[in-house]
Amino acid sequence: MGAFSREFKPDKVLAFRFVDEELVKALTSFVERENVETGIISFIGSFRQVKLGYYDEKLKKYMAIEFKEGPYEIVSGLGNVSLKDGRPFCHIHVAIGLHDGRMFGGHLIEGDVLLAEGFVQVLEGEALVRKPDPDTGLAYWG
Amino acid sequence: MGAFSREFKPDKVLAFRFVDEELVKALTSFVERENVETGIISFIGSFRQVKLGYYDEKLKKYMAIEFKEGPYEIVSGLGNVSLKDGRPFCHIHVAIGLHDGRMFGGHLIEGDVLLAEGFVQVLEGEALVRKPDPDTGLAYWG
Amino acid sequence: MGAFSREFKPDKVLAFRFVDEELVKALTSFVERENVETGIISFIGSFRQVKLGYYDEKLKKYMAIEFKEGPYEIVSGLGNVSLKDGRPFCHIHVAIGLHDGRMFGGHLIEGDVLLAEGFVQVLEGEALVRKPDPDTGLAYWG
Repeated sequence: MGAFSREFKPDKVLAFRFVDEELVKALTSFVERENVETGIISFIGSFRQVKLGYYDEKLKKYMAIEFKEGPYEIVSGLGNVSLKDGRPFCHIHVAIGLHDGRMFGGHLIEGDVLLAEGFVQVLEGEALVRKPDPDTGLAYWG
Repeated sequence: MGAFSREFKPDKVLAFRFVDEELVKALTSFVERENVETGIISFIGSFRQVKLGYYDEKLKKYMAIEFKEGPYEIVSGLGNVSLKDGRPFCHIHVAIGLHDGRMFGGHLIEGDVLLAEGFVQVLEGEALVRKPDPDTGLAYWG
Repeated sequence: MGAFSREFKPDKVLAFRFVDEELVKALTSFVERENVETGIISFIGSFRQVKLGYYDEKLKKYMAIEFKEGPYEIVSGLGNVSLKDGRPFCHIHVAIGLHDGRMFGGHLIEGDVLLAEGFVQVLEGEALVRKPDPDTGLAYWG
């Protein structure tokens, strides 16, 4: 596979604030409505509960790690928007902080937010498209 | 409350480097001087000492967690600038790394930096404004 | 030292995706080839193995912390490109997540990625240049 890259121009920036919503669903609906094909996602906030995923290379799937006794600070939320099966897809990783500051993190499967505030920096250019890789079970750009 | 969003255009980007300063104060003065109303903050570096906050939903306030025996790597610093009570306000979450790589994180109350280097990506458009929410004690955009 | 800042305009944004490469080397070659002088780096993904650094203020050098039994989620990858000794230099901090969600993080010395996907937001303006500081052994902008 090696390396892949593509050049874009910065387009508009969409600020978002969600309260009491499931973040993956809310963000995916939002970028779909705004016709975002490619973008950079970053946010902070807090979760009531969250399900993180850890990619198991042997089983070729995400194993879930559940956190149900929030709230948890969203210390960092980072990711991107690209196209998968013709629709905008949000790939997001989050780090959460407990009441004593200890942290857990991984791939965001789903999370109910008390508050999430952040940005989608929309990119202008030929859209990034995810293509399935049978070797890993993941879907890569390019 | 649900969802709120607003569209911006990317304006200038301000790179900053602070050495031996309290970060929240230094960054707030900086964005005030530069007349930033809305922006995206990201940085890395290291803290000598830092006070993190964890939002307690029942008490409706941030509980402090202090780290006094640095230095600590600033593994991630993410946040935003928006207006609160008519002035630029920096909302920042940080993750810190100890000498053995263990991490702690939360809302940044204050932190003395050995070094912080990062960016404020300034956004052009109707400013994001924080309004107090009596239910949670927090101040939300929109 | 105190504070230093510089104003830039957003230029192009480079999306990158690396599979089975050493990230620091791959990213440094990439920004060199693309003639990036100043930029903002952000990415997510996963490492097969990674060597993190913790800056020891007394010894004035980075102490290595090795993680060899991956994969590890790259929960956050944040950093910047600036010039050091006349060439583009990538300063990157990463947070990694283990199979149970526990996190470790620090300065990225080197890391073999299963996958890294992210962006270099290129900045237009007088390049940021790192200058050695004899007091700390670090190299600061300005």
